Amino acid sequence: MSDTLTRLAQVLEERKDAAADSSYVASLYHKGLNKILEKVGEESVETIIAAKDAAISGDCSDVIYETADLWFHTLVMLAQLGQHPQAVLDELDRRFGLSGHTEKASRPSA
Amino acid sequence: MSDTLTRLAQVLEERKDAAADSSYVASLYHKGLNKILEKVGEESVETIIAAKDAAISGDCSDVIYETADLWFHTLVMLAQLGQHPQAVLDELDRRFGLSGHTEKASRPSA
Amino acid sequence: MSDTLTRLAQVLEERKDAAADSSYVASLYHKGLNKILEKVGEESVETIIAAKDAAISGDCSDVIYETADLWFHTLVMLAQLGQHPQAVLDELDRRFGLSGHTEKASRPSA
Amino acid sequence: MSDTLTRLAQVLEERKDAAADSSYVASLYHKGLNKILEKVGEESVETIIAAKDAAISGDCSDVIYETADLWFHTLVMLAQLGQHPQAVLDELDRRFGLSGHTEKASRPSA
Repeated sequence: MSDTLTRLAQVLEERKDAAADSSYVASLYHKGLNKILEKVGEESVETIIAAKDAAISGDCSDVIYETADLWFHTLVMLAQLGQHPQAVLDELDRRFGLSGHTEKASRPSA
Repeated sequence: MSDTLTRLAQVLEERKDAAADSSYVASLYHKGLNKILEKVGEESVETIIAAKDAAISGDCSDVIYETADLWFHTLVMLAQLGQHPQAVLDELDRRFGLSGHTEKASRPSA
Repeated sequence: MSDTLTRLAQVLEERKDAAADSSYVASLYHKGLNKILEKVGEESVETIIAAKDAAISGDCSDVIYETADLWFHTLVMLAQLGQHPQAVLDELDRRFGLSGHTEKASRPSA
Repeated sequence: MSDTLTRLAQVLEERKDAAADSSYVASLYHKGLNKILEKVGEESVETIIAAKDAAISGDCSDVIYETADLWFHTLVMLAQLGQHPQAVLDELDRRFGLSGHTEKASRPSA
């Protein structure tokens, strides 16, 4: 399903050495972690608003669009912190097979 | 890289018919979209806080953990709305090859 | 302490009939509730990030600034919905004298 | 209008020396800044969702309730950082008389 995330992580890695004005991602890296985190927060709110609207209209295209924006900016955050999205997928894999309730109960803190 | 998302989407689909008390996910579906969206918002803030702490401590384990929580709850949101995560990956694929700035400029609204 | 909120509510009310390009507030009203709520979300994330930085640096000027932005945009939201900030202060007054835990326990839902 | 904020700031200050289990506020202080900021984020999302619902239903009681929660937790955050809400009101006062656009344009960063 998602060579997409692998390829996207590669692109994000490659753009780390690029000039600030060479792409949107390069400009985000240069603005730094706070700016990237503001975008994560902003896109999560836009996703929530789009989902509320979709529940009324039945049209989910904005939800898909905003969720893509949200995932994208979390990938930029991970890259900025030197992390690979595979670590997130490994964490999701690790939780598999567990019922959610069991999983919650076994968290160190939640 | 991510059969994880495909399998997770299957699990989320299967739990739609389950009793509210059978798992964490089933309880979320029964509480409804607002509760799921509250979780999306909550996990995005926890991700942001974890990233700020990681930038100081150098330890990214909480960021990975919270990002997994965030992605997970967006997957529950998509499932609740009858959407598949492949649509989000397709949207990310579609944007590939574009520089981010070009992509931003071509958005209907941003 | 805060005739500020009363006067600000008056200003926000007066700008409802103004042309979209006459002020920042007028432009927000014209863009509509979703845009106003995006700003509420954005400013809450900026407040959170500023608080994390203040806890390290000891300089709270950005926290004050971002909290002002956050309160301001909630006032615009209330005005857009035809509500007055006095209703929020009345709600806070009502909770007074209660210990927080008692108050939480007596909520309809929390 | 708002002796409420002055009195609430006093209450929040007094509870700083209280035992963790003596009130909701005392327990928040003991859990620390991250927990307080998570609550700020959570309540801002609940405010946004309540506003979306109010725009459909016409019933704003949840918006008032959630906005009170949001303001309240920003007051706890300010107290935890040793700040008084008057500083936020002074900042809002300072911006008065300015059109929002002018104000935005004169920000150090936005």
